[in-house]
Amino acid sequence: MALELWWGSGSPYSWRALLALEYKQLPYESHLVHFAKQEHKSAEMLRMNPRGRVPVLKDGDYVCFESLAILHYLDRKYPERPLFGNTPEQTGTIVRVISEYEAYVEEHVKKVVYAILFPSADGGVSDEVTRAMHLLSAEARTIENKLSTLTWLVGDTFSAADVVLYPGIQMLMRALERREAQELRSRLLPLETNYPAIFAWTQRIEALPGFDRTYPPHWREPRDS
Amino acid sequence: MALELWWGSGSPYSWRALLALEYKQLPYESHLVHFAKQEHKSAEMLRMNPRGRVPVLKDGDYVCFESLAILHYLDRKYPERPLFGNTPEQTGTIVRVISEYEAYVEEHVKKVVYAILFPSADGGVSDEVTRAMHLLSAEARTIENKLSTLTWLVGDTFSAADVVLYPGIQMLMRALERREAQELRSRLLPLETNYPAIFAWTQRIEALPGFDRTYPPHWREPRDS
Repeated sequence: MALELWWGSGSPYSWRALLALEYKQLPYESHLVHFAKQEHKSAEMLRMNPRGRVPVLKDGDYVCFESLAILHYLDRKYPERPLFGNTPEQTGTIVRVISEYEAYVEEHVKKVVYAILFPSADGGVSDEVTRAMHLLSAEARTIENKLSTLTWLVGDTFSAADVVLYPGIQMLMRALERREAQELRSRLLPLETNYPAIFAWTQRIEALPGFDRTYPPHWREPRDS
Repeated sequence: MALELWWGSGSPYSWRALLALEYKQLPYESHLVHFAKQEHKSAEMLRMNPRGRVPVLKDGDYVCFESLAILHYLDRKYPERPLFGNTPEQTGTIVRVISEYEAYVEEHVKKVVYAILFPSADGGVSDEVTRAMHLLSAEARTIENKLSTLTWLVGDTFSAADVVLYPGIQMLMRALERREAQELRSRLLPLETNYPAIFAWTQRIEALPGFDRTYPPHWREPRDS
């Protein structure tokens, strides 16, 4: 039976699952779930994931959700083109980079994106968001240094570390491009100039076969701001 | 060369690494790092983990940090007594349970523990902490239901899911036992009565060979409150 993936446009967690499936060149049935229509809370979705969240992967009778679980499952089930390395040491380092992103970076990304999408009444930037931007810049500098000598985040091939970080970084970039984010934007962007190694890495990911099928469809439409 | 582990007493992340090493029956050199003496920020520690956090595992020349990375590394390097299951489906479900804990439970545990250790001036419980307790009760109920038919969180053997959740739950229990947590405590405890399946599961973990070596040493001392 074919693999099936339920995913939402613009969800960085969904994007991870799509990138993994495309990188592994696995055929899958794609189900785009529309958040605006509350499709992720439908009875069918809640039967698979009681939290009503995407991505959800179905492989025959087996249902898997939570993006990291999907990546690990796919890698064990379909070991060709591994996402978690070829050696125990690579596996450890890939999971370490992912854990560091989730523990020390992701919350700041979310804070900044949230502040841009839901700005304060006076349009000012809170101390909390300023602090998040400061911490993000420091983490971005560490990643920039790493990528200035490496092609991918860990080892010499694309891995789950690239799969996990890329959509989060793109979500941040997308929010910073909004008109109302002008002040925040100037502290990180343009990526090409301030973080050229990260920029080149995003371009390498975007050149991977199948990348276009992972790109959030509503990001291709004209935006409202 | 022997495995070496640097860990801190009472750190739930350190506890995970200790439980994994003991479960796998791997010999290791144990280095207890004293937070109060800032030993986790020593030059030696910062050379291994620039963030100055524990646990840190060293295996010959290879250094690994972040608890989940240590678990995955150990399981690939020493596959006997697996922590991530025997099949891709088990792996996916184990990682899913861990991800759900980290995404939907851990922040509430931290919030409640923090509120107990650093109470507000008026001694009252904030709406935020009340909400965290409410969400924790709901998650505990889900786990209770699961454990009422299962011996371990996933499948029929101890796994990384048990390794990850147990120390977090124990940290919460330990904080709730403090004198100043009386009001909060009454909403969750006693575990034996309110969540008997979770209680029985903690007892099974505590009966595992080597468990005593993982127990935070300073928890055995008389407490200050």
